[in-house]
Amino acid sequence: MRRVLVTAVAACFTTLAAADEGMWQPAQLPAIASQLQQRGLELDPSRLTDLTGPTMGAVVSLGGCTASFVSPDALVVTNHHCAYGAIQYNSTAEKNLIRDGFLARTQAEELPGDPNARVYVTDEIRDITREIVGKLDPKVGGLARYEAIDKAQKAAVAKCEKPGVKCDVYTFHGGYSFQLVRQREIKDIRLVYAPPAAIGKFGGDVDNWMWPRHTGDFSFLRAYVGKDGSSKAYSKDNVPFKPKHFLPINANGVEAGDFVMVAGYPGRTNRYRLAEETRDAIDWQYPTNIRWYTEILDIINRNGAKDPAVAVKYANSVAGFNNYLKNFRGQLEGLAKAHAVDTKTTKEEALLAWLRGQGAETAALGGDIGELRGVLAQQRKVRDRDLVLGYLNRTFLYNASYHIYRTATERTKPDLQREQGFQTRDEPKIEGTLKQWERRMDPGVDRQLFTHFLRGYVKLPADQRVKSLDAWLGTGATDDAVLVQKVDALYAGTRLTNVDERLKWFKSKRSEIEASDDAALKFMVALLPDLLEIERARKQRSGDELRLRPRYMQAMIAYNESLKQPVYPDANSSLRVTFGQVQGFKKDGVEFTPFTTGDGIVAKTTGEDPFDTPANEYKALVARDYGNHASAKTGVLPVNFLADLDITGGNSGSPALDAQGRLVGLAFDGNWDSVSADWIFDTGLTRSIQVDVRYMLWIMDKIDGAKNLLEEMGVAK
Amino acid sequence: MRRVLVTAVAACFTTLAAADEGMWQPAQLPAIASQLQQRGLELDPSRLTDLTGPTMGAVVSLGGCTASFVSPDALVVTNHHCAYGAIQYNSTAEKNLIRDGFLARTQAEELPGDPNARVYVTDEIRDITREIVGKLDPKVGGLARYEAIDKAQKAAVAKCEKPGVKCDVYTFHGGYSFQLVRQREIKDIRLVYAPPAAIGKFGGDVDNWMWPRHTGDFSFLRAYVGKDGSSKAYSKDNVPFKPKHFLPINANGVEAGDFVMVAGYPGRTNRYRLAEETRDAIDWQYPTNIRWYTEILDIINRNGAKDPAVAVKYANSVAGFNNYLKNFRGQLEGLAKAHAVDTKTTKEEALLAWLRGQGAETAALGGDIGELRGVLAQQRKVRDRDLVLGYLNRTFLYNASYHIYRTATERTKPDLQREQGFQTRDEPKIEGTLKQWERRMDPGVDRQLFTHFLRGYVKLPADQRVKSLDAWLGTGATDDAVLVQKVDALYAGTRLTNVDERLKWFKSKRSEIEASDDAALKFMVALLPDLLEIERARKQRSGDELRLRPRYMQAMIAYNESLKQPVYPDANSSLRVTFGQVQGFKKDGVEFTPFTTGDGIVAKTTGEDPFDTPANEYKALVARDYGNHASAKTGVLPVNFLADLDITGGNSGSPALDAQGRLVGLAFDGNWDSVSADWIFDTGLTRSIQVDVRYMLWIMDKIDGAKNLLEEMGVAK
Repeated sequence: MRRVLVTAVAACFTTLAAADEGMWQPAQLPAIASQLQQRGLELDPSRLTDLTGPTMGAVVSLGGCTASFVSPDALVVTNHHCAYGAIQYNSTAEKNLIRDGFLARTQAEELPGDPNARVYVTDEIRDITREIVGKLDPKVGGLARYEAIDKAQKAAVAKCEKPGVKCDVYTFHGGYSFQLVRQREIKDIRLVYAPPAAIGKFGGDVDNWMWPRHTGDFSFLRAYVGKDGSSKAYSKDNVPFKPKHFLPINANGVEAGDFVMVAGYPGRTNRYRLAEETRDAIDWQYPTNIRWYTEILDIINRNGAKDPAVAVKYANSVAGFNNYLKNFRGQLEGLAKAHAVDTKTTKEEALLAWLRGQGAETAALGGDIGELRGVLAQQRKVRDRDLVLGYLNRTFLYNASYHIYRTATERTKPDLQREQGFQTRDEPKIEGTLKQWERRMDPGVDRQLFTHFLRGYVKLPADQRVKSLDAWLGTGATDDAVLVQKVDALYAGTRLTNVDERLKWFKSKRSEIEASDDAALKFMVALLPDLLEIERARKQRSGDELRLRPRYMQAMIAYNESLKQPVYPDANSSLRVTFGQVQGFKKDGVEFTPFTTGDGIVAKTTGEDPFDTPANEYKALVARDYGNHASAKTGVLPVNFLADLDITGGNSGSPALDAQGRLVGLAFDGNWDSVSADWIFDTGLTRSIQVDVRYMLWIMDKIDGAKNLLEEMGVAK
Repeated sequence: MRRVLVTAVAACFTTLAAADEGMWQPAQLPAIASQLQQRGLELDPSRLTDLTGPTMGAVVSLGGCTASFVSPDALVVTNHHCAYGAIQYNSTAEKNLIRDGFLARTQAEELPGDPNARVYVTDEIRDITREIVGKLDPKVGGLARYEAIDKAQKAAVAKCEKPGVKCDVYTFHGGYSFQLVRQREIKDIRLVYAPPAAIGKFGGDVDNWMWPRHTGDFSFLRAYVGKDGSSKAYSKDNVPFKPKHFLPINANGVEAGDFVMVAGYPGRTNRYRLAEETRDAIDWQYPTNIRWYTEILDIINRNGAKDPAVAVKYANSVAGFNNYLKNFRGQLEGLAKAHAVDTKTTKEEALLAWLRGQGAETAALGGDIGELRGVLAQQRKVRDRDLVLGYLNRTFLYNASYHIYRTATERTKPDLQREQGFQTRDEPKIEGTLKQWERRMDPGVDRQLFTHFLRGYVKLPADQRVKSLDAWLGTGATDDAVLVQKVDALYAGTRLTNVDERLKWFKSKRSEIEASDDAALKFMVALLPDLLEIERARKQRSGDELRLRPRYMQAMIAYNESLKQPVYPDANSSLRVTFGQVQGFKKDGVEFTPFTTGDGIVAKTTGEDPFDTPANEYKALVARDYGNHASAKTGVLPVNFLADLDITGGNSGSPALDAQGRLVGLAFDGNWDSVSADWIFDTGLTRSIQVDVRYMLWIMDKIDGAKNLLEEMGVAK
């Protein structure tokens, strides 16, 4: 499955509790209209259900981040950390846009983003559950179920897609329902403006996930299309896209207590997971990944310290690893504090007790939960192996050779029978990645990472070993010197480190690859049959899960409904709206107030990264030279603000909107207590963090002189 | 000098600013009586000047920590971390009092503290500046000045001391004035009660220096003397000391805004240091020690992980290293945020400019500041060597052999000519340390540390090398294998690891030691002549500093007086009083409220160290079973509270007193912003953290069942 995640069903909308917990699908909003209006929304909620209307029509996905159109010429605003790839792609040790920032004073000066950069404009979401599983016997699981669903999904996508239009089937509640999402795909995304990292990443990893926060986490991109309006890859001849709608700016921002909402593409939450899945996350998933990430960062940083070019190439990866590392630690801390396993176990026992008291049909769901546990136990048996293979697939050499050879093998089948991710529609993205490695990978570092992951592999127990990989390693591979020698030979014997060579092989036939003497391709040709066997077993388990998890969710929904608990969809990267108000939070001995100000930047400034405020900004803040960007209420310059919005990764860059749907900031993070909200939401503590529009405008106006953009957005004064 | 530190002069008392900054000597309090009363003191301030009176007479020093008598039978209350040595001394891997806590239900059950544990009761402080430097030519510096002061100090001490009475000369303003402090020395200090580490160290290194805080950082000791009332080392026949005064307990505590004061023995502040000394701290001192401490902790922890007995032996050291490590990082962060070097430079330039505008005599002080800079430059040249030697002296082998041999060499002189620290009066302490190593040192770990420090030594430039040490190392010592071999042989060839052997040698004559074939003693016999030469050069520089720093301080005092800035003494381990009120602090985006409560412990509890609240406490807190210990104002159980008191290391365990001088808590820490207050005090941010007396009483009453102690303090209900 492309995604195995979750949504709510219409029957549950009415049983909504008072909390601002909930990532609502646009279509759900009319059902909770009274709540929205009670909170202060001044728009007709039904306007927000129109995906091509004035508000939602301006909210776009960057694939992993959210953004929005803010001008008729497709000026796009998002987080600095979402534009980081584009900034890094245009940076070198000599011309360091990460450090110095960048401003195109004209469209001609705008820089091409990396080849995989995209803007996706959602224009339709349609329930196709009947189409996908309507004819399937509810008792069929395993490979048969997996393949039937897979086939139906691909057919639905094929029927929907055309050049410039991307379609995807999103799985909700682990297979309880399916929705087809149609998006316009724009491929020429340029970097327009990014403040220096000392503004855009102010506070860095120290402040990440923390409040008080003072980060100017915003940047501007622009979406370009062909002169005929069609989606085209980067070309000088392309012209700015003309979005149907763009967000108006409220340059006066919001104040404490005001209504605020965020529209965006939250990636994944786990609020309906079983207690044992929560325990696995605590006991295995987070600690194991923390260990691996720490080791990976150690390798990259050791090399980066010696060579600034390496540091620039891996800057994006390092930022990502550090972000997740802190996130994982926060998850563990939050889950421990919330006694998550106990809480979930108690809830699960209550669910099972409740089920036993229901009619036979509902009561039967209890047995399915037992079966689901069996599937989880099977997955647990191979998780260490799958994790190591996943890490290997993060190395350039493994990833490139795998994608080259796998694509070639898939190309021998009719398109609709090819594996998802390796269909004709996927080839441009694979090609983009093969190119992109050029700027993001150093062969020496890659080799060290590959070696490191293999060291993890050779420690696996016998029943988790991969035969062909063992054969390639040979007998002495538990001897580290032998292992190192093997990998050195592998890297010495490949020409895939050359981008032209990679692209040549990507165009080659399966038989040509199988005849190649390139060490990396030979390695992968030997490995793939085993990988396919592993994949087949995984699909078998997925098929069972696709049968059982919807049954569990059906039980959970029925039970929650009986408790009048809110049921809303777990995040699954589809478009959602969360609403609430600007507000802080309290803990024992401390109150976190909802706004930070320019004075806080001055107080945090040390002159050392990540608190190295640019000299001109520091001076202006000390002088309180706020222009007309200060809060009318407090007279000071707001920088970041808190709200009780339910967001998660993927919401980064989401527009924060006021009661009239005007842009008042960008969501970019949550507080430390929000990290574990992916599992358990705490109304009193979970807060989103937004960069205030007034700070953005002040930086553009007073510090970086981006008057051209202020004029384009209609806020120049 | 025993201590080279600072105090204010009477002339300056009148120019006091409004801030609660200031560590006041008891004798200064009548001069600031109106301020004290304005803040809310209900006692006559002059009562606080009487060191043997009802309040100050109950406040005692533990040598590094502060404590107070709280019963007529010399029950002493201090911080858990101040009693940590005694708790650790009585702990083994099997009987782990650190983990489990300890309560003596009768005096017979009380456990002996470590042999060096002391309670010092100050009974007189007298200015003896005239006696020390009255006859010295102001122009004489160098060794002559050093030795004259040294001789006068020793004479004053000798005249004052007698069995059970300890006298010390404290140096103020780097030699501007000297005061003789007379203290009763009690030598039999027993452990009475300590809560489990999960209470006494709750939050551990994570929460250390942080607010909100929830640490039950308190323990009880008892001071014993001989039946005749004289100071005696531990003996079963000893009886509890009968203090003239003990503090009454205010079981109702204080509330936000209330007057509060702390009396204690702050160790050291640097508020009058030159800008370049601040820069040295930032550029060299803190970063270098951070590196060393990290490496030392790494070595200890690696060994402790393998052997729990090692972990117990080094628990106290590890706690200390971690505490300082975090402190140093806080110093660096705070100094950077405060732009300390710039601030100090500006102030210094203003001082010099002001001096130039004064009469010739005052203006001449400017030249002395230039000379002082010259002395600092000389010290800087040998600081790396001195640091390495200092670290070597922290290893058992070096420290024990040095003290054994140095004492023997000093014993050949008349007592008054012996080096300070090696006089007859010092011998019991040295002997105590030689015994103490037994429970605090593992020869394997010690050897690794010794090797590690030598690795630092061999990297020193040629002009900082020590000839005899180079000779001992031999030619190949830059080869790590050779160095390791040398150290291994040293440890294999010594019997000092045996306590009886150490004590035998400590009683031996110089000639006997010089004839010994013990490898460690031979090593030290070879080294000492060079160490004495280094010491001589250091005394030379100290003599210059003793001439020049008082001149700089004279200029600083005159200048501050002209600005009507408060001038109070920098901390120098002598008795001080600081006063203010219970209050929190604000930062941009956050308000730190002055009290934490039992609910906060529940919220922080994860079940994992350092948030592993004992089950009975957790249960009682969840049930809000506060007995009569809740705040009358808020109805909840206060745990820790903030106040704007000016404290630093050494104040740990200090009684926090209400307006009537009753005990309402114990100071045990400062907030993160207070760490760098050692250099620059920030009225808005610097806060002390106290454990609330109500939390102490609740733990004793409800959790640990220490009714006997509650009765003894007269607060059983």
